[in-house]
Amino acid sequence: MGSDGAYLLTAAEALAKIRAGDLTIEGYARSLLRRIDVRDACVGAWAYLDKDYILQQARALDKVPMEDRGPLHGMPIAIKDVIYTKDMPTAHNSPIYKGDFPKLDAASVILLRHAGVLFLGKTTTAEFAASYTGPASTRNPHNPSRTPGGSSSGSGAAVGDLQVPVAIGTQTGGSTIRPGSFNGVYSFKPTWNAVSREGLKISSLMLDTIGIFARGVDDLDLVANVFGLRDDGASGFQGIKGARFALCKTVVWPVAGEGTRNAIARAVDILRAHGAEVDEVDLPREFDKLPRWHSVVLQTEGETFFLPEHRTAKDKLSPQLAGYVERKAGYDHRAQLEAFDGIAALRPKIDEIAGRYAAILTPSVVDEAPEGLEHTGDAAFCLCWSALHTPVVNIPGFQGQTGMPIGVSLVAPRYHDRHLLKVAKEVGKLFEAEGGWKRNV
Amino acid sequence: MGSDGAYLLTAAEALAKIRAGDLTIEGYARSLLRRIDVRDACVGAWAYLDKDYILQQARALDKVPMEDRGPLHGMPIAIKDVIYTKDMPTAHNSPIYKGDFPKLDAASVILLRHAGVLFLGKTTTAEFAASYTGPASTRNPHNPSRTPGGSSSGSGAAVGDLQVPVAIGTQTGGSTIRPGSFNGVYSFKPTWNAVSREGLKISSLMLDTIGIFARGVDDLDLVANVFGLRDDGASGFQGIKGARFALCKTVVWPVAGEGTRNAIARAVDILRAHGAEVDEVDLPREFDKLPRWHSVVLQTEGETFFLPEHRTAKDKLSPQLAGYVERKAGYDHRAQLEAFDGIAALRPKIDEIAGRYAAILTPSVVDEAPEGLEHTGDAAFCLCWSALHTPVVNIPGFQGQTGMPIGVSLVAPRYHDRHLLKVAKEVGKLFEAEGGWKRNV
Repeated sequence: MGSDGAYLLTAAEALAKIRAGDLTIEGYARSLLRRIDVRDACVGAWAYLDKDYILQQARALDKVPMEDRGPLHGMPIAIKDVIYTKDMPTAHNSPIYKGDFPKLDAASVILLRHAGVLFLGKTTTAEFAASYTGPASTRNPHNPSRTPGGSSSGSGAAVGDLQVPVAIGTQTGGSTIRPGSFNGVYSFKPTWNAVSREGLKISSLMLDTIGIFARGVDDLDLVANVFGLRDDGASGFQGIKGARFALCKTVVWPVAGEGTRNAIARAVDILRAHGAEVDEVDLPREFDKLPRWHSVVLQTEGETFFLPEHRTAKDKLSPQLAGYVERKAGYDHRAQLEAFDGIAALRPKIDEIAGRYAAILTPSVVDEAPEGLEHTGDAAFCLCWSALHTPVVNIPGFQGQTGMPIGVSLVAPRYHDRHLLKVAKEVGKLFEAEGGWKRNV
Repeated sequence: MGSDGAYLLTAAEALAKIRAGDLTIEGYARSLLRRIDVRDACVGAWAYLDKDYILQQARALDKVPMEDRGPLHGMPIAIKDVIYTKDMPTAHNSPIYKGDFPKLDAASVILLRHAGVLFLGKTTTAEFAASYTGPASTRNPHNPSRTPGGSSSGSGAAVGDLQVPVAIGTQTGGSTIRPGSFNGVYSFKPTWNAVSREGLKISSLMLDTIGIFARGVDDLDLVANVFGLRDDGASGFQGIKGARFALCKTVVWPVAGEGTRNAIARAVDILRAHGAEVDEVDLPREFDKLPRWHSVVLQTEGETFFLPEHRTAKDKLSPQLAGYVERKAGYDHRAQLEAFDGIAALRPKIDEIAGRYAAILTPSVVDEAPEGLEHTGDAAFCLCWSALHTPVVNIPGFQGQTGMPIGVSLVAPRYHDRHLLKVAKEVGKLFEAEGGWKRNV
């Protein structure tokens, strides 16, 4: 093929072609920009994209001698618009920061830039990656009347729509896993604090985590390498056959819709058919408090972190976020500390439980992406893992009643990120092949 | 007085004069700039200071009508040079960021700016507020052959030298409390996460805290108001007479020098002489792990947060910080999680213990500021409170063998910041009056 169809490639595939001299970075960029031209009027994934600057960067990258190139040289990537980039504005989808342009690269951006990536632009986000209402301009590429999820709306939609192979997002509640599921892509929330959050605007210090979107685990691995993610030892995972998985439906299972119930049932059947053991595991009752504690942490930290915007521009803050500062929910410091300390005590316990299995299998979402663009969907199944700081991968492959994609999550103990990716790669092959959903954008 | 001696005032005193029309902000600024002119060639507290810009801002502030003024209108303040300010460069005392000028205000700076402060400049810091070696250019105003402490070296020295009434610093180990003690000023480390750390470059996410330096508790209160610090309820503290204090010498007491031993003994005597009860309290043995756990958290988080600088400019990173990234100490994720979870489990326990008393009395430092400028002194007595996230105030009033200032710390449970300031105000009056040390710069 020439470069026309390069937008179809995963990053790993494209980088191999670039290294082999079969694809120029400019040609790759032009292919993606054509895809964006054709599709993005409908999808609306970008908060900032400068075509001329992209091509200028691409040509500069093409001129770098092979021996001077970093591991991701020429890999196009999108950055969620709550993460600072010194060569592009950062507006947090807030009128307070419209056009704001701090000359600062986030830590994640420094690492990616040094590895040679081509920054395509900034992807849309819910207000400060914190509001439940989405960026109304962004649509699900698989059905434009449905939400792409949030808060990493543009990152999920752009990768799902083949406009960019890899995107960086964030997760505080379910902002990486949920749009991963809704857009039919892999999405990875590493262990909290394992990737520097420097330069990601804070919503909740104890919850916010950098996330990664891609259409294959190989691409997640590429970024995980550059982010320096490493486990203490080698993974003992030897393949699906003989592996043990825990199915954790969690305390919020009653809200699961038919699409998710079917996806989980199918996932269990596939794993078992390939020789894995799947045990249904009920988490101890003390884990039942996690959804409420997550909400307490989110709101009480929101009081601290949105205070500057509330003090200086209250009228431009959504009522939800202003409500955090105004303590509308009535949570005081005692409630905050009960949640902080209570969650902290559960973290080593979930590590111990998850450590008995290749991974925990658990829902990513309540169901396929709902109709409408105002609300980004329910994050109920993501909250407890965000609070527990465990790594989570959404694996696509299933579908809901209208044929929209549905993913399921795998979870591992904290700092078992590379092990989790290794498991996700094998599980993903099966779910993509046998789960029933095929990408058709 | 005219404005000539205005540099001698506390911020609370100066703001009263400004409000009464007895002092212009420009006159106040000129008084401080003269003080800086006379003294700072010796002290070297400033990483950035633009006299013309200061006077221009001061004149602009003078023109604001009284009814439009914020609560800190015209209050001069210095900002540690690891905190972003959109109108001044931020260099972290690192050659990597020399002259760097991100157009971004930290959350704390937004709140202060909105309250009407006059930013005098950026104060010197140890490299990234993380290196044990100080900014060699900064000297203790009470004896220029001695260290002002670190890492908030310039903030402590500038306030101690009457060059500015209030300064913002940070604390990860002892970077606010120790320079407070060494420079003979009040310094306050609020509860971790109670003040937004947005825009403070991360050294350790679980430890870094914004700190405040001043020459009186009234000034700490002014800034605490603007930072939105509030307790759940009113303090029950009714004055020294009849109050109960806990003396916690902690597991590191054997390293205390004669200056600190005398200061603590004198502090206990003074409190008892004024009718307080002081009980010596041994913390449970499980607290003995805190110094090691603090070190593990510091170094393992350093691996994550200094990775970008290590990847892009390793040669410009000090060996200490490069060693964190290279895991020179050999701590793996298992060690990191043991420290994280172990400290987390102690936090509610220290709250419970501290909650039985008006405050915990404990050393701030090993002794008076040591000779030499290369090392900022031992933070041994500060580490456990930084790890435990409790608020701490250094109270001056005592002195070492050579007459250099020595302070002692008061500690309260998390989110009892305003209670702690209330206690510190009464205790500070006694220690300043009867502790034996008098400021003579």
